[in-house]
Parts: sequence; C-alpha cells; structure tokens
Amino acid sequence: MEYTGHGGKAIVERVVSSQSQARELIKGLKSVAVTGRTARECIGIAYGFFTPLEGFMHKADVDTVCEKMTLANGTLWPIPIVFDIREEEIREKTIEKGNTILLIYRDRAFATLEVEEIFNYDIAKMKQAVFGTIDAKHPGVKMYDGFEDTFIAGKITLVNRPKFQPPFDKFWYTPNQMRQKIAEKGWKRTIAHQTRNVPHSGHEWLMKGAWFSANGEMPVEKLETGILVSCIIGPKRLGDYIDEAILLGQQKLHDAGYFRDDIHMVSFVMWDMRYAGPKEAILHAIIRENLGCTHHMFGRDHAGVDSYYDSYDAHRIFDQLPQGSLNIKPVRVLEWGYCPICGEVTYSGLCGHNKERQAFSGTMIRSIVQDKVKPTRLIFRPEVFDQVIESAEKYGFGSPFCTEEYLDKRQPVFELAKL
Amino acid sequence: MEYTGHGGKAIVERVVSSQSQARELIKGLKSVAVTGRTARECIGIAYGFFTPLEGFMHKADVDTVCEKMTLANGTLWPIPIVFDIREEEIREKTIEKGNTILLIYRDRAFATLEVEEIFNYDIAKMKQAVFGTIDAKHPGVKMYDGFEDTFIAGKITLVNRPKFQPPFDKFWYTPNQMRQKIAEKGWKRTIAHQTRNVPHSGHEWLMKGAWFSANGEMPVEKLETGILVSCIIGPKRLGDYIDEAILLGQQKLHDAGYFRDDIHMVSFVMWDMRYAGPKEAILHAIIRENLGCTHHMFGRDHAGVDSYYDSYDAHRIFDQLPQGSLNIKPVRVLEWGYCPICGEVTYSGLCGHNKERQAFSGTMIRSIVQDKVKPTRLIFRPEVFDQVIESAEKYGFGSPFCTEEYLDKRQPVFELAKL
Repeated sequence: MEYTGHGGKAIVERVVSSQSQARELIKGLKSVAVTGRTARECIGIAYGFFTPLEGFMHKADVDTVCEKMTLANGTLWPIPIVFDIREEEIREKTIEKGNTILLIYRDRAFATLEVEEIFNYDIAKMKQAVFGTIDAKHPGVKMYDGFEDTFIAGKITLVNRPKFQPPFDKFWYTPNQMRQKIAEKGWKRTIAHQTRNVPHSGHEWLMKGAWFSANGEMPVEKLETGILVSCIIGPKRLGDYIDEAILLGQQKLHDAGYFRDDIHMVSFVMWDMRYAGPKEAILHAIIRENLGCTHHMFGRDHAGVDSYYDSYDAHRIFDQLPQGSLNIKPVRVLEWGYCPICGEVTYSGLCGHNKERQAFSGTMIRSIVQDKVKPTRLIFRPEVFDQVIESAEKYGFGSPFCTEEYLDKRQPVFELAKL
Repeated sequence: MEYTGHGGKAIVERVVSSQSQARELIKGLKSVAVTGRTARECIGIAYGFFTPLEGFMHKADVDTVCEKMTLANGTLWPIPIVFDIREEEIREKTIEKGNTILLIYRDRAFATLEVEEIFNYDIAKMKQAVFGTIDAKHPGVKMYDGFEDTFIAGKITLVNRPKFQPPFDKFWYTPNQMRQKIAEKGWKRTIAHQTRNVPHSGHEWLMKGAWFSANGEMPVEKLETGILVSCIIGPKRLGDYIDEAILLGQQKLHDAGYFRDDIHMVSFVMWDMRYAGPKEAILHAIIRENLGCTHHMFGRDHAGVDSYYDSYDAHRIFDQLPQGSLNIKPVRVLEWGYCPICGEVTYSGLCGHNKERQAFSGTMIRSIVQDKVKPTRLIFRPEVFDQVIESAEKYGFGSPFCTEEYLDKRQPVFELAKL
C-alpha cells in the first residue's frame, strides 16, 4: 500500500533491496566519507522520514526554506537538509554535476548521491533564518559553523540497510512500517510524543492529558487513539541519558502497565537536534506526519535551549501556518507538576494551587537517579527506575548518563554489512 | 442580545417582568394547583432550559417524541414534557380549549397556561418509548404511572419569578444569564458536567480529563475552555445527598483551588430525573446546549438505574442522531478509579492495571462521610469533606444525606411572593 506523506506526496523510499543489486550500482563510483549526522540524514531521507525530500536540498530550496519556510515548490519546510563537503575534496575527486558518488560511513558503502547541483551558501543567512540568532554559543549555530564550505544537492539512495542493534532493533520502524503498524492497531488518531528523556510521571501525564485532547469527542468504548513515543536518537553529550535507557525506560511504562498495551508504543527517529525551538517543532511535526501520526504534543520549551526562545514560541508558530500546509495537528500543553495539596501530579491549566505546585526538576530527578535512591512512585515509577539502573549496567558502563567511556566505547546504534 | 438555542430557535423566555403586570394578567382566571414536578417544568420552559418548547406538549409532539424522538416539527427531542390533570377537575372547572388558566404552586399564583389542546394518551406507549420498559419498579415508569388521566397542551408564562434561597441563589443562572456569564469568561468551549453528587476525586478527574477532550487542539496559553458543573435539583429520596451539600461541595473544589478560578463554575438546573438512561442523556445535552455549552460529558451509566440500560447505552445513542440535530458534542468517558500501582487516580482507558485499579464505590464514600472519618486527600478532598459536614449541620439537621426530617422541614429551594 502506498501511503501519503507531507506535501501530499507518497512516502519516499529509496532503498536498494538486495546486496547484489547494490554491488552493481556502486561499481566504479567516486567515494566520499560522511559524518554521523550526514549518515543519519541519509537514513531520514531514504526511508521517507523527510518526505517529500528525495535527497539533499538544492540552493533554490534552501533559499525558500530560509526566506519563506517552504520548499521551492511551496511545501512547508522549516530547516535546510543539506550535504556539506570541502570544496577541496570536490576538486581533488573531480566531482561534477551529473556524477553519482558513493557515500561511505564507518568504512562501509552506505548510500549513493546523485550530484545535481554544487553550490555555496551564506551560512549567516541560514543561521539567522533557522535559529533567529547567529550567536556561536547556540548549539545549532555551532553545528552550522562546523559545516564544510560547499554543498551538493541531489537524490539519495541507500545501498546498505542499517542493521539496528539491540535494544534499538525492536523500536525501529520506518514510516511505511509505522503506517502499517498503526493500521494493525486500528488507531484512527495517533499522537506523537517527542522525547530524549527517561520518563518521570510529569512526562507520563503530559502524554495522558494530550491523549484526551487527541481523542476529542470520539467514542471511547473502542479506543482508536494511540500514543506514539517517538524518541530522538542522535549525537550524545556528556551527561545526557544514554539512548538505551531512554528507549527501555519509555517501554517500561508500557510493560509495567502505566499505559495500556493497546494505546501506546515506543519507537525512535534518527535526527541530530538543532535546538531550533519553533522551527524545529515544525520539523518534528513533519517527521511524525510522515510516520502516520495525526497529532503531535508540544510542551513548554519544545526543542529550545537556554533562553533563545520563549517557553511557548513553539506553540505559537503553528497559528501562523497557512491552512492545509501541515497534515498533523499540534496539541499544545502547559505544565504538569507535583501538587502537594492535590497530593498528585496535576496540570497548570486545571489546578489552582500555583504557589504550591512544583515543577518536575530534571536536575532533581537526575540526582535521584545518580544516587540510586528509589524515588516515590508518584514522581518516578519504580519499574522505570530499575530499568534505568539495569540499562546503566548493561549499556552505560555503570552510568545511566553518558560518560566519556560510553561515548568512546558504546555499541553502535546500527551496523553496516560489508558489501 | 438574543441567543440561539436548541432547534435553531432563540432562547425562550416567557416571564412577566413586573408584579403589577402579573396581577393584571391573572385577573379572573380559573386556577389549578400543581405539583412540584410541574412547577419545576414551568420554570424549565419559561426560562428556556427546554427551548424551543414554549409550553407543555401537544398530542402530535408527544406522538413524534415517542415514535421518532423528535417534536412534530422534526427537532430532536427524547422525552415528553406534559401537563397532566384529572379529567374530573377539567369538568368541574369547565376548562376549555381557548381558556387561559392560572397555575398555583404552594398556594401562590405561579404561571399561566394557555389551553390549546386537551387530550388523552396511551401511557404504556409513552413508558415503552421513553424507558424501553413498562416495569413498574423503574422509577421513571413509576412517575408516569402517577400521571393524572388527561393532558393539557399550551404555552406557559411565568407570572411569579421564583426567589431562590441561599445557598441556591448564587448558583442560579437562566440560559440567557449563563450565555452572558460564559461570554464574560471568554470561554469559546464549555463542557457540562451533570451531577447529583458531592464530588470525590474520581468525579474531579472525570471533569479534568474531559476538559482536555473539549479543549482538543486549541492553544492553551489563553485558556478558553471552561467546565460548567450543572447540578440537577429536583425531588429527593431518603439517603440522597442533600442539595445544599452537592452545590457547596462542588463549589468547594473551586474555592479550594482543585480547579482554577478561570476554567470552572457551578450552577444548577431544576429537573425531576426520569432515569431514562440514553434518552435522558439526550435531554441533558439539550438543556446544556440551551445553557450555551458546546460539549457535555457522559460517563458510565449516565442517568441510568439498576440494570435497565447497559453502562454505555448513553454513549451509543449519540452515534444514531442525524447530523446537525444537536448543537453540542458528547464527550464520552470510561472510568476513573484509584490505582494503587500508579499511586493515584487513573483512567481505565489509559492505565493498564485492570486487576488492581479500584472503582470509586459510592457506598464506600458514603460510609466515610457518614462516619465523619476524614478520608485521604487522593480519594476525597478534605476541604470538600469539611464543607459536607458544615452543610449537614447548617441545612441537613445533622446529616449530609436526606432524612425524613430534612424532607419534611428543609428550607424550600425557592420562595414565591404573594402577588
């Protein structure tokens, strides 16, 4: 079955199906080694997470993305997806328009790139457009400052399917696979929860409240509204939760019954966070639209960093989009916190105990986890806590947070076969 | 401002504005004493709770209500609103079509009724249509069995405004007043909660969850979704909560901050419950549509009694209504209960701990209240508990539940002036 994705286009899938076909395809191609970010974006493109993109962007697309937040054809798009390369390398390898080049990742043939355009771009313009700032301390600006000096535009074809390693393998769904899974589950409405966290009960209730919003006035006897926890897997920084703890911790909420089996599932997306606040919120919405979600929750400070964006900028931007430009609905959420008067986790839009209600402090939760002191079940589910400790032992070299050792020696998220 | 109510008609208001005008109007009219039920229905009609009804129903309307669940003009209507009278009284007082008669309640002139039709009706047909049963043990059937033998159809005009007594006075809003109040509050969506209960935290969360459903995908920075607790005030039975405890207990959730001031209010409707399950659910929806609500929550066993209806019959009936027949949306709710694993009040549509989750037992809560043992705040809010005890002392002759003494000596809900 062909599914329709963002911009009204069929979900892109540009993946060679057999190794022999792949070997044929790549014969004699000039090769270029790519970074983890580019490899992750190749996966995003080739499996259709970025539908309607079939490859890295042309200059004309980057222009309209920066100027009007659309592709050149008018489709809503907030952030450039570009292939950067040193001009020197282009020269040395005599890469020219019309070539197809082979992208190598971790010494393995990975994807082909059809060279349709080679161009330069004003990075300051890109930074200002995407981040609203060119401040070099902004982590997204920092990423852009690390771009090579030249860009190649063109279609991507994956010639080597990533083989996701445990525990990632059982959470991996491409957009076409996810559409099928949602159909099997009978969900008529699916609301995405974007996360890079091990869940505390504030996160759990954010999802639970948003589920009601997505369900709306629908009958409830046969539940046809599901929650898709869609974790972002990308580069890690020291002190982040390890990826394995995030996925397994989210799944534990399911396995331990904090979510019913029939209304909740966990998956992930490969993406290097830009921390672009409101513009990144739109990209997240597009990715989940492609995954088949009908709704996407956005809490406080979605994809924000420091104080570059107002807490609710990522809420407001959706009001400015032209009608019909996005086929997924934002469900905007204020704050869930622990209220000692209510004696439970409550919502700032409902509970009037503003002085007493306590925000969930990430720092507090982290220190609890760090100290391995089991917190109260109202704050952090004990089964999730145990799972985090187990993940730390199994994957984190004893720590649930990224250490130098983890960053250095961790199991790769996916392996590539030798072609 | 003229507001549009059910059936696309302006909210009915048939109330004489001055006593002198009223005295003029009733001069020389034949008078008929009416029961509390009829008096409450006169209020319902005259203030537009039953818009588009302007009076008691004609035979043709009762026919279509029974046969097609509509008025004769096609407007959705589930339950006959009829004026019953002994044929003997009609004969003795020579009441005839074309007369206007004066209705007397508690020895005071109350309303006029324009006699447009005098008719008999097959009560068994009415019972079967409304209740789906003619079983004399059904309390609605019992009510119908008590009807006098003849009916008068015709327009009602209130000549004596009920003066609601404390604490009822501050909760009384006619449909026109409620529309104005909602406009002042800036609510674009208002969801009605129907109740005859002092709230425990299961009720509180039913409202909180339904609020999200009504809010849907709307922005949340400026909250424009409100909860209207719409209590039913009518005849009481031994052991029911006293009316005063219901209203003041619901209001206490507000005053003690369990609901934010800007998203919640408490009011009431005069109505004698029929316990007609699904058909009564539609009537409740129509009344709240007239009050200006956009949504109405329906939980398990709405307006049901014993096992005459399936727990979710009142959910299902809304799927059978013709498009556009009702200008208010049902928000259907499963069950909220206390889950010891979650350590909090949870929803059966979300929490997977089906074996462990405990339904809130009315009997358990009643026994807690009866014994004056303050329950845990997760189950019953202490401020509400204190309010119930205070109401018992002040209004209930020491008991929060209706006793013979209360039924006999209670303060009337409203007084009528001597014209």
